[in-house]
Amino acid sequence: MTMKRLINDPYDVVEEMVEGYVKAHDRYVKMCDLEEAQGRVVVAKDAGTKDKVGVVIGGGSGHEPLFIGYVGENFADGVVIGNINTSPSPDPCYAAAKAVDNGKGVIYLYGNYAGDVMNFDMGAEKADEEDDIRVETVLVTDDVVSSENIPDRRGIAGDFFVFKAAGAKAAMGADLDAVVAAASKCNDNTRSMGVAMSSATLPSKGGPIFDMEDGDMEIGMGIHGEPGVRRGKIEPADAVIDEIMDPILKDLPYEAGDEVYVLVNSLGATPVLDLHICYRRVAQILEEKGIKVHRALVGPFACSMDMAGMSVTLCKLDDELKELLDYPCDTPYFTQVK
Amino acid sequence: MTMKRLINDPYDVVEEMVEGYVKAHDRYVKMCDLEEAQGRVVVAKDAGTKDKVGVVIGGGSGHEPLFIGYVGENFADGVVIGNINTSPSPDPCYAAAKAVDNGKGVIYLYGNYAGDVMNFDMGAEKADEEDDIRVETVLVTDDVVSSENIPDRRGIAGDFFVFKAAGAKAAMGADLDAVVAAASKCNDNTRSMGVAMSSATLPSKGGPIFDMEDGDMEIGMGIHGEPGVRRGKIEPADAVIDEIMDPILKDLPYEAGDEVYVLVNSLGATPVLDLHICYRRVAQILEEKGIKVHRALVGPFACSMDMAGMSVTLCKLDDELKELLDYPCDTPYFTQVK
Repeated sequence: MTMKRLINDPYDVVEEMVEGYVKAHDRYVKMCDLEEAQGRVVVAKDAGTKDKVGVVIGGGSGHEPLFIGYVGENFADGVVIGNINTSPSPDPCYAAAKAVDNGKGVIYLYGNYAGDVMNFDMGAEKADEEDDIRVETVLVTDDVVSSENIPDRRGIAGDFFVFKAAGAKAAMGADLDAVVAAASKCNDNTRSMGVAMSSATLPSKGGPIFDMEDGDMEIGMGIHGEPGVRRGKIEPADAVIDEIMDPILKDLPYEAGDEVYVLVNSLGATPVLDLHICYRRVAQILEEKGIKVHRALVGPFACSMDMAGMSVTLCKLDDELKELLDYPCDTPYFTQVK
Repeated sequence: MTMKRLINDPYDVVEEMVEGYVKAHDRYVKMCDLEEAQGRVVVAKDAGTKDKVGVVIGGGSGHEPLFIGYVGENFADGVVIGNINTSPSPDPCYAAAKAVDNGKGVIYLYGNYAGDVMNFDMGAEKADEEDDIRVETVLVTDDVVSSENIPDRRGIAGDFFVFKAAGAKAAMGADLDAVVAAASKCNDNTRSMGVAMSSATLPSKGGPIFDMEDGDMEIGMGIHGEPGVRRGKIEPADAVIDEIMDPILKDLPYEAGDEVYVLVNSLGATPVLDLHICYRRVAQILEEKGIKVHRALVGPFACSMDMAGMSVTLCKLDDELKELLDYPCDTPYFTQVK
């Protein structure tokens, strides 16, 4: 099947996307003008000028609005942008830290992928050595099926909650240790699982990234196409949600009366219509268990380009997480006033 | 090709979507409890209680976040929900007017489709006869290629701007005539054109709504698959944008120094990545002509389920339209603080 995308030269997609993004959202963001940024760092307009910890997020492209969409007020201060499904290089990671630091240190937040860990760590080391900037890192590990061992798990749509919590804590004026603690707590309380019904298409390949038989779905597949737990024919939404919710709910202790923030996320091509049919079943399951929904978000938050599929994320809340996730913020792809 | 959707019974998609929607977004909306609403009217939590003109939007389902996503504070007060690509029935149109009226009258706003016009008009008549509610209507007609004659044109993504302008004017306390004037002015200044690279899939059919050869695109296609102006092989993004922008810009007089609000809209499966590559070219063209971008929105605002494609909308601004479109609002799918 032909790739149905609107791009120019496949090797220019990220540069052209970033150029378009900064033009479209220039009320919020600007290019980082440090040489080491290599055109791959976008920062909030007031980055580095406020008396706060700097919040840097990032990773490969193709997941928009993640990561670039969440740079703005009371959320992330800067984003480092890799090629499609590829970690950014160390120098842009370094440049982002330098651009957002104002003496209170910087937190790096990103999904747990080996390439990202290596390059962000090199960026942090350079920021420490050359500019004496303290950089701490919290890896997001919300994908329940990616490993039995939590620190080995990948980050998927749960990134959104962890970034939001850290952004709010930093905006409140907390020190770096407290921002790290808030991000870690949010990650510890966040679990996701997804389903894919097609591969995303890769501009440089001109077609799907991996093969998937027409009419199949894969439960638990990662946002780059990492293997899930089961492949089979596409089933009704309620059956799919039942199969996804079970491992998510078993992975943390839950009691009746607990509160959660729910994110029902499109991986790209799955319509907002279908997501609400899925949300309906998520809400029924939570209600049966006496778990209260504090808030819900339904839409494309962490995508895989044009992949058909969705994921469910639950963040189990305490008073602090509620305050952080409810904290007002304003970015091109997420604005909250109350 | 198999339909890659997450639904249950194909004939329950709208009911289940509405049920999920109201649960997910219960901070903003509730079901209208009038019998005539037939479960197809969703209203803002404070609908009918404020001293303002009531704003009702609506149309067929499958375009989410349009229409249901824009009910909330300082935007629409109620939405009438039809089946997929199908006008709502007259009774729900009537119920929505009754639910949102608080003595200052009601404005109906929707895209110009024959079925919608017929059924909303019958709803308005009933509201007048049974409850003495004055209802006025402004049809959105932004799709430049749908007819030479402007009042015959269809409404597509330009709906968003017209609804936003009317919602703000009503929130400011204007009377019904002034809200009608603001919506009409916004519609008069708004032009859109799109491109499709695939059909949406229809749950009741289990496959695409219409045939489209793999690798083809259709310039100017409507959001229900209405014929466009030219079908051919998919071209680079810049060439597609050039072809779309030309008729949009020719359809209104523009001078250097004019200001516009730009909406680059996904029809469903086209990634946010690609939309920014498209926006980059839109911005270049406007810059060449000396037209200033006041604001830009890039993302899925008015979709056709899982259709691959996008549209560009320009709203030419004057001081009043700028004030209305910049006015703060808060709904599940659009929140603006500044």
